[in-house]
Amino acid sequence: MSARKLLILPGDGIGPEIMREVARVTAWLSRKRGITFDVTEDLVGGASLAEYGTPIRPEVIDKAREADAVLFGSVGDPKWKDIGFDKRPEVAILKLRQELGLFANLRPAKVFDALVDASTLKPDVVKGLDIMIVRESTGGIYFGDPRGIETLPNGEKRGINTEVYSTHEIERVGRVAFEMARKRQNSVCSVEKHNVMESGLLWKEVITDLHAREYPDVTLTHMLADNCAMQLVRNPRQFDVIVTGNLFGDILSDLASMLTGSLGMLPSATLGAKHSDGRMPALYEPIHGSAPDIAGKGIANPIAQILSLAMMLRYSFNLLTEAEMIENAVSTVLATGLRTADIMSEGKARVGTDVMGEAIVREL
Amino acid sequence: MSARKLLILPGDGIGPEIMREVARVTAWLSRKRGITFDVTEDLVGGASLAEYGTPIRPEVIDKAREADAVLFGSVGDPKWKDIGFDKRPEVAILKLRQELGLFANLRPAKVFDALVDASTLKPDVVKGLDIMIVRESTGGIYFGDPRGIETLPNGEKRGINTEVYSTHEIERVGRVAFEMARKRQNSVCSVEKHNVMESGLLWKEVITDLHAREYPDVTLTHMLADNCAMQLVRNPRQFDVIVTGNLFGDILSDLASMLTGSLGMLPSATLGAKHSDGRMPALYEPIHGSAPDIAGKGIANPIAQILSLAMMLRYSFNLLTEAEMIENAVSTVLATGLRTADIMSEGKARVGTDVMGEAIVREL
Ligand SMILES: CC(C)[C@H](C(=O)O)[C@@H](O)C(=O)O
Ligand SMILES: CC(C)[C@H](C(=O)O)[C@@H](O)C(=O)O
Repeated sequence: MSARKLLILPGDGIGPEIMREVARVTAWLSRKRGITFDVTEDLVGGASLAEYGTPIRPEVIDKAREADAVLFGSVGDPKWKDIGFDKRPEVAILKLRQELGLFANLRPAKVFDALVDASTLKPDVVKGLDIMIVRESTGGIYFGDPRGIETLPNGEKRGINTEVYSTHEIERVGRVAFEMARKRQNSVCSVEKHNVMESGLLWKEVITDLHAREYPDVTLTHMLADNCAMQLVRNPRQFDVIVTGNLFGDILSDLASMLTGSLGMLPSATLGAKHSDGRMPALYEPIHGSAPDIAGKGIANPIAQILSLAMMLRYSFNLLTEAEMIENAVSTVLATGLRTADIMSEGKARVGTDVMGEAIVREL
Repeated sequence: MSARKLLILPGDGIGPEIMREVARVTAWLSRKRGITFDVTEDLVGGASLAEYGTPIRPEVIDKAREADAVLFGSVGDPKWKDIGFDKRPEVAILKLRQELGLFANLRPAKVFDALVDASTLKPDVVKGLDIMIVRESTGGIYFGDPRGIETLPNGEKRGINTEVYSTHEIERVGRVAFEMARKRQNSVCSVEKHNVMESGLLWKEVITDLHAREYPDVTLTHMLADNCAMQLVRNPRQFDVIVTGNLFGDILSDLASMLTGSLGMLPSATLGAKHSDGRMPALYEPIHGSAPDIAGKGIANPIAQILSLAMMLRYSFNLLTEAEMIENAVSTVLATGLRTADIMSEGKARVGTDVMGEAIVREL
């Protein structure tokens, strides 16, 4: 196989320092498993704004397009909060999603046995929790037109955004969810607000049809977004795969991940459609943000970033053995009692970013 | 003062049976406190569909407009799930909000000491929780145009909804939130997605300006909707008043209420602007839904509906003493150990709808 092209975009805040721990793991992959990458690194977000005056350069988008996978850190920096809507650091990730057609954002919310007490929920409610949220990520109100702020003749302003979903967009993300479910507990819950929004009504219809046509073996349920938020708190283990639109997915996946109590542990993948040459655009990033308050202190948890690499091995390179080895190493290191500050609890050993990274590689 | 005109709309599912318990309380108000109402009752939701083929008749909207307050049960019945978008039972509540201009939906999420264990969250996270969500309820994506489902030339369908907020709409609901905060812990958190949506950007600007101009004494913070969902799980007691748009408010208020573990306890109010004659349109309803699965069994919890009446006494009729008397009676009855099925726990006495209603009135 030709060299695996990997674009690394550390971004802002803790992004660069947790990405350094990933380098230890790729070094191990090359040394011990003969798996190498052709790595390019570049700037995005606030880091790119500082250097180039834009949150992401067209060259970076081209590089991402040519890469087999993008490993992303996180963007967002309070320093740039007044830069204006078109230049905010978040544009970097939104443009990558849109330009590369990364329409399926996979967000696992998984409780690690060793960390069950980190949750604010009672242990018996979240123990063993393992949800996969499949969030549509190139459509909906994030990208719909018309949008903007207009000034009315009387001086008042009006802010406008448009939620749009087409049959095609709903079907392709639905397929990802059903396929995913077949490899898990075989159950999909589709979430919208069909009782208020026509776009949600279409969503429900299209998912229902797709299910009947192509996935009758998978259990399908439907839930309103407000009820889903409730049910995630009431009894989160009722869910296997949740499929939903961009905006609901944004909120519900953050909610679901907080149920685990350990955001610093959760990776995510955003996948596009396979091209005719078999390549699939893909971006991997931690669920947590850039955490500017702790950036540069060497205390950030590198695990979500390392597990994002593991997801990449699995989904982009079909290296299932190595993906599992990394995931198991993380579990073992946790079981030995090492903890970064964010997941610290009594009686455990508090370590910094680099010691955690080192320990995982040593375990490997 | 002239007779207090009250329109009662029990609606579907458990609505009628919990509304019967309210009648006990109004009987007590008249008997012991000399407070009387001129009561009219009518059908909405599935009940109205069955009788008149529409979820709400124009006459009912007129009656609601003429009333000093509307006491609402709940709507929604799986029997009507295929009736079509324009006739679904939910249209009843949406029309009432819009036609009466009920733009401020107040949703308290309060943990009763006696019920702290009912939450799926750890007691030390939710004990004493007392959040007031002020949700905009006549605008945003619920009512924006264009909307609908269109068929494209290639046979594909597209579902469209539009989020629109104007300066005026944001300001008036912002004022309600700031006023509310002054009577509470003096702190407002405004929630939107200004990093993705221009309507959220305008929301944030307008709230910021309003604060600087009229409420500099209140503490104002801003939070993204996804982060707010997380923070409600991580540390809900950081919030006093939350102000947000219609769709985020729908989801976040349901999430917040589920933190309490006892939906059957939570009332809500939806208020409009004061007319020139001093009257204020107002509707009061429990947060919970019509619960068709337990309807007619006599086991539903009437407390949210009774506390909705208490909110009505407070906000529409300025009967603060009586409102508090009812709230205290509820607390006392809980403290004596009476529980409906939804809030039942070991060692308590399980009772039905009517025994609970009776006990509260006896306590009064
Ligand atoms: C950074 C931001 C634009 C983004 C979003 O809202 O999609 C983030 O919250 C996410 O969920 O990936
Ligand atoms: C019944 C439904 C239309 C309604 C809404 O979405 O507003 C309900 O969920 C609510 O929150 O009052």
